[in-house]
Amino acid sequence: MKTTVGVIGGGQLARMMIPAAVNLGIDIRVLAEDEGMSADLAAVQVGDYRDRDVVLAFAATVDVVTFDHEHVPQEILRELVARGVAVHPGPDALLYAQDKLLMRQRLTELGLPVPDWARVENAAELGVFLAAHNNRAVVKTARGGYDGKGVRLVTHDHEVDDWFAALAEDGNGGALLVEELVEFRRELAQLVARRPSGQIAVWPVVETVQQGGVCAEVIAPAPSSEGRLAQAAADIAVRIAEGIGATGMLAVELFETTDERILVNELAMRPHNSGHWSIEGSTTSQFEQHLRAVLDLPLGATDTRDPWTVMVNILGGPAEGALSARYPAVFEAYPAAKVHTYGKDPRPGRKVGHVTVGGDDLDLAAYQARAAAAIFQD
Amino acid sequence: MKTTVGVIGGGQLARMMIPAAVNLGIDIRVLAEDEGMSADLAAVQVGDYRDRDVVLAFAATVDVVTFDHEHVPQEILRELVARGVAVHPGPDALLYAQDKLLMRQRLTELGLPVPDWARVENAAELGVFLAAHNNRAVVKTARGGYDGKGVRLVTHDHEVDDWFAALAEDGNGGALLVEELVEFRRELAQLVARRPSGQIAVWPVVETVQQGGVCAEVIAPAPSSEGRLAQAAADIAVRIAEGIGATGMLAVELFETTDERILVNELAMRPHNSGHWSIEGSTTSQFEQHLRAVLDLPLGATDTRDPWTVMVNILGGPAEGALSARYPAVFEAYPAAKVHTYGKDPRPGRKVGHVTVGGDDLDLAAYQARAAAAIFQD
Repeated sequence: MKTTVGVIGGGQLARMMIPAAVNLGIDIRVLAEDEGMSADLAAVQVGDYRDRDVVLAFAATVDVVTFDHEHVPQEILRELVARGVAVHPGPDALLYAQDKLLMRQRLTELGLPVPDWARVENAAELGVFLAAHNNRAVVKTARGGYDGKGVRLVTHDHEVDDWFAALAEDGNGGALLVEELVEFRRELAQLVARRPSGQIAVWPVVETVQQGGVCAEVIAPAPSSEGRLAQAAADIAVRIAEGIGATGMLAVELFETTDERILVNELAMRPHNSGHWSIEGSTTSQFEQHLRAVLDLPLGATDTRDPWTVMVNILGGPAEGALSARYPAVFEAYPAAKVHTYGKDPRPGRKVGHVTVGGDDLDLAAYQARAAAAIFQD
Repeated sequence: MKTTVGVIGGGQLARMMIPAAVNLGIDIRVLAEDEGMSADLAAVQVGDYRDRDVVLAFAATVDVVTFDHEHVPQEILRELVARGVAVHPGPDALLYAQDKLLMRQRLTELGLPVPDWARVENAAELGVFLAAHNNRAVVKTARGGYDGKGVRLVTHDHEVDDWFAALAEDGNGGALLVEELVEFRRELAQLVARRPSGQIAVWPVVETVQQGGVCAEVIAPAPSSEGRLAQAAADIAVRIAEGIGATGMLAVELFETTDERILVNELAMRPHNSGHWSIEGSTTSQFEQHLRAVLDLPLGATDTRDPWTVMVNILGGPAEGALSARYPAVFEAYPAAKVHTYGKDPRPGRKVGHVTVGGDDLDLAAYQARAAAAIFQD
């Protein structure tokens, strides 16, 4: 009798659950969107996660359903739960990863620190917000944005008229989220895992460096974060996880503002790019912890294995040839670098892999991880 | 264009190559002996590795052929090589893992330290050896032994007549290997990896503790091994790897004798139980290194991640129920223990998994690893 975890979505997050599952002796089955995706090895089926029948049939073959992404429609998730399927995270929690307006609203209710924000349905309402915020703001679509998509910096009230028009057209009475443009010193991420029965595990807060709205690198732990900052970040993430009933991994993206505040930016309710460092850098990786959590098993230790761990994304990859053609050069130059590639074809800006280096010396680890990743990106 | 490693044999060694392959972005395909084996996830075919056509067809789908075990017949291996297939380790090296008599002969030619030994074809020859060695010796079948099978401690010349009879019957003119009964302080193992182009990587020598001829636990590095002992063990393994042209992982089992000698006991030409600690305990695990080596890629760093790493096998498993039924108890009590199970059904004495714990304190790590493994074995 084996335990089987079913993952909806065949991307790199599902892929990176495979090693954790293999090590733990847990069977993993993936419902992939297409042939040949990152998690192909564990893919048992190609199908549309928006198709109720496909998802129900897949769920019938596993012990728990979890996700590579947050896009499975609420009505399908709720039907799974109604039929007694274990779904983690569940629909009530996932809602706040699916809809940024609802997320802002809930975090505000929970008394958590967020940027000033408003729900705006038209240019006039946006104009009111802009007037109150020095004519600079960030507008986000409530749904469907990721890696910088669906986010626009605006200085005039008509700069998102196309989005208002699209919302009016789909007739769901939607609105946009507008937020103050936060002056931040740096971005942080706080990873936590939570079991359905309540246990929570917290990693050290990390620094994330974005380029063009996409995560470029992560430093674990965030430099100069011990003490007050680490405690504040952990407290926020634990309060969110408990407040919304998250199960499995939760990543809380944070701003550390120039005026010493910690504000919640975004939530991800699954393993997250900001936690890839934990594969080598922590006793328990985010992927193993996610499996433990969704199976309601006791969580693993989250201590760091090195004083510093630096993870650098491979964005795009080589203009010509396969990523693997660069392995000889990378492995030769950086024998301690841990190289991960996701089985994806190189394409400008695409996350196709990452490199992690740990050590006692942050500068050296960062240098090596960046240099190794750069060899993939000519 | 992806790189594909083909593994013949679907046991736990093939299974543990899967996480390394997934991380590195290498495709892995397994030719399994049966349905539902440990490496099932990567199994693309069930077939007999003694069937030339099966092996040739499998080899045609991969970039390099390697192994979960050493039992593929020489004539098939040689045909693969003749057809231009990359086979690592190759038949010339594998011979010394397949036949203990040839191994002893070759190591003696290479001037390496081995126990006194002889090739014996009958009880009379065995009697001569016994008379010269205080009437105590170890007799081994040249082929087919593992985990204590095919090994017998003898004090009289007729104690292996059944084996002589079997050899006479198969008509291949075979013989048995007889060796002095080594008085040893402890057993050690030296892991090395070697690329076809020559690069060699060496891990620290480890101590292996056997129970009933089966590896029970491994301590890395071997206590009090720094300096002379570590150097001697590494030198021996490097000389063997180069002397026989091993490619991929090579494990050299060693005796540390009561009179301060290091003697070579056995060879394994694949990832080995004595190297499972390296999954968490070294920057590069033996499984990742094996993949790098057989693909002739530069080898990874082999430094240890903790002062001490202890690996304890789960032998047998619970009398009733699945291994996974013990996860809640194990994970609750030992959150830093890394639990690996192999998807095998519990059976007395069977290796069904292992537990690894690292840390600064050897006693504490050993206590935790043993206690965690014990929970699986009531």
